[in-house]
Amino acid sequence: MIKPQTLKGFRDFLPQEARKRQYVIDILKKVFESYGFEPLETPALEYEEILLGKYGEEGDKLMYRFVDRGGRKVALRYDQTVPLARVVAQYQNELPMPFKRYQIQNVWRADNTQKGRFREFLQCDADIVGTDSPLADAETIMITAKSLEKLGFKNFKILINDRNIFSQLVKQDICEEKEIPVVIRAVDKLKKNGKEAVIKELFSKGLTQKRATTTLQCVVVMQETERLKEIFLLLQQYGLKNDKDFVFSPTLARGLDYYTGIIFEVEIEGYTAGSVCGGGRYDKLIGMFSKQDIPAVGFSFGFDRLIEAMDELNLFPTNILSSTTKVLVTVFNKNLLEKSISCSTSLRSAGVQTEIYLDENAKMEKQLKYADKKGIPYAIIIGPNEASKNMVTIRNMKTREQKKVSEEKIILTVNSS
Amino acid sequence: MIKPQTLKGFRDFLPQEARKRQYVIDILKKVFESYGFEPLETPALEYEEILLGKYGEEGDKLMYRFVDRGGRKVALRYDQTVPLARVVAQYQNELPMPFKRYQIQNVWRADNTQKGRFREFLQCDADIVGTDSPLADAETIMITAKSLEKLGFKNFKILINDRNIFSQLVKQDICEEKEIPVVIRAVDKLKKNGKEAVIKELFSKGLTQKRATTTLQCVVVMQETERLKEIFLLLQQYGLKNDKDFVFSPTLARGLDYYTGIIFEVEIEGYTAGSVCGGGRYDKLIGMFSKQDIPAVGFSFGFDRLIEAMDELNLFPTNILSSTTKVLVTVFNKNLLEKSISCSTSLRSAGVQTEIYLDENAKMEKQLKYADKKGIPYAIIIGPNEASKNMVTIRNMKTREQKKVSEEKIILTVNSS
Repeated sequence: MIKPQTLKGFRDFLPQEARKRQYVIDILKKVFESYGFEPLETPALEYEEILLGKYGEEGDKLMYRFVDRGGRKVALRYDQTVPLARVVAQYQNELPMPFKRYQIQNVWRADNTQKGRFREFLQCDADIVGTDSPLADAETIMITAKSLEKLGFKNFKILINDRNIFSQLVKQDICEEKEIPVVIRAVDKLKKNGKEAVIKELFSKGLTQKRATTTLQCVVVMQETERLKEIFLLLQQYGLKNDKDFVFSPTLARGLDYYTGIIFEVEIEGYTAGSVCGGGRYDKLIGMFSKQDIPAVGFSFGFDRLIEAMDELNLFPTNILSSTTKVLVTVFNKNLLEKSISCSTSLRSAGVQTEIYLDENAKMEKQLKYADKKGIPYAIIIGPNEASKNMVTIRNMKTREQKKVSEEKIILTVNSS
Repeated sequence: MIKPQTLKGFRDFLPQEARKRQYVIDILKKVFESYGFEPLETPALEYEEILLGKYGEEGDKLMYRFVDRGGRKVALRYDQTVPLARVVAQYQNELPMPFKRYQIQNVWRADNTQKGRFREFLQCDADIVGTDSPLADAETIMITAKSLEKLGFKNFKILINDRNIFSQLVKQDICEEKEIPVVIRAVDKLKKNGKEAVIKELFSKGLTQKRATTTLQCVVVMQETERLKEIFLLLQQYGLKNDKDFVFSPTLARGLDYYTGIIFEVEIEGYTAGSVCGGGRYDKLIGMFSKQDIPAVGFSFGFDRLIEAMDELNLFPTNILSSTTKVLVTVFNKNLLEKSISCSTSLRSAGVQTEIYLDENAKMEKQLKYADKKGIPYAIIIGPNEASKNMVTIRNMKTREQKKVSEEKIILTVNSS
């Protein structure tokens, strides 16, 4: 017999996990839509040439690629930004500009699996394409904050920087232009690995020990750019507080090469596994399939980390954790089945999520056990006694308390709990 | 430059289409959950051996298969039933029984593309695993009806048959047991190709002309099985009307090999492209990864046909067809930007989906054009005149009517339309 198993790095989501995911997705969508972002879906498979060479050497290596039966070289979606760039080029006359879209789909990366890293995972992106206004930068950050607030996070901080800050190093003759990417990549690891490690990496990349040290010292004390000042003012007008909700962070560098302006990450108090959200401005990327540069700014929620952080901080409402069913109508016997059907139908018509136990021959004990296993709060029993009086017995599955009530009273009892 | 294009049979869903899809999904989920069905997600990629040989020769041929970088033979999800069978075997102790799950995910088939047939398409499945009760059969059909009703379909009919009906042909010495699958496959094409074609196919499969004719004559006049009678009674208790909402259809055969009991399809009046939903009982399939048979019944909505039928019958509410944004707050100039931010923030806090135009230097004409293109019904203008009086100008984008109102009045105007 074939062993039932999933591939390494791939996951099943059983009902409880699937409900938690849906809960988060629904909230994010609602926030995104309240700011006028619109949904976009792109295919799982793309022509390989669309994706290849866009994510650096590492990306090409981790991409799931194969040749289809028609001989086409194809690849599975690796992120949602390159497909967005393709869409913007392909439908430019149909799309409103600025184009504000969100996209919540799986991506696939054949990465080494480890805690919190999977080969199939959900990305939640929102991006604004076609404007280089600081207002777009501020709105992007605002949406991040609003999303976390709606998910129930109370204490989080948005770290903000501007990639252009690093050009100060060139102006002050500390680094050469071509060293900036090296500096960014090294500084990106400051929080994780510490100062020593950053200096060591800069040294290994050809900076003298002295220049490596000076570079890092300089980065740490650098001042906000004019652009950042403008964005911070807008954020305050949006209602965010400087130093409390957001903070200037000159050592924030972000790993991705393609950022050209503002960059930001979100840290959640009490959750130490890393940032749950990151984003920034990238004005040279979206135009890759068009003839001209198209400015863009956006962010991506790390969905698995978000779920993990919410789990750790107990932010899921308890009703998400068990079945959405409110009432199980049991079946006493085949003769009384009709009574149970009619009761379940009225409850459902009244908007109560209701199950009828789907085996008219099962013992009552088994039926109640089913309610327990699914976490259904109430069970209804309609035996001959109840049926003759046009009543039902309602059982609170937690307290095991039972009482006889009329059918109309069920809804009151269920809704009052 | 690389040409921005999608693979044949793969589709982008731009905002309007994506919103329509989400609208249908949300309704289906709500109906499924009102009957106690729970969400399940399985990976896009499975070990090839899990999927291979489960769908017949055709399925194996159309499956997207490749070898991953770790040398594993993998395949893209071809349907949601085989993954369900794997899940049931893999987590049997964790799952409540009966296990009622719905699953709404993409599947991939390298089929010839034609109108309405794609290589990546969404399936919406709901199945009940672990009970062979006729009540489960009836509930499955009931949910199909309720889903269509909630989507706005008024005139549809559920055609119902029992696969066991065909064994009558054996009992009456018209066919041999081993000819039954051939008969089913031929009769399945009756509606599409007509009587002549069915008889011709039966003849080509070895039945004499006379026996082929008798077989078809017999099928057409066959009577309901006892099981069907029981299910029909339950459906009536659920509130469905025989001959109006559902109808016994002895010539309904369904293409799939694996059905073992009741089978059904839904026809929608005014939509001729085919059935939008099909299902049935399959008691030998789910146990394929376990040691014993596990009874199951379920159905699948043909999502693309559903969307097409809803389009043709105008069942999408108009607010789904344009942006969800209710108000565009324009930006008069940089000095007045703060006023626009504060106005958009209050509107959003009051639950109004609001956009602010994300370029403080854009001409008013361009901003209003944006609202038109997205189908945003109202625009707010806050110029120096309005600002000094603490008023705003609200413009109805359809009638082009403008009036000055206080900020509080915006919500009234927007909600009253």
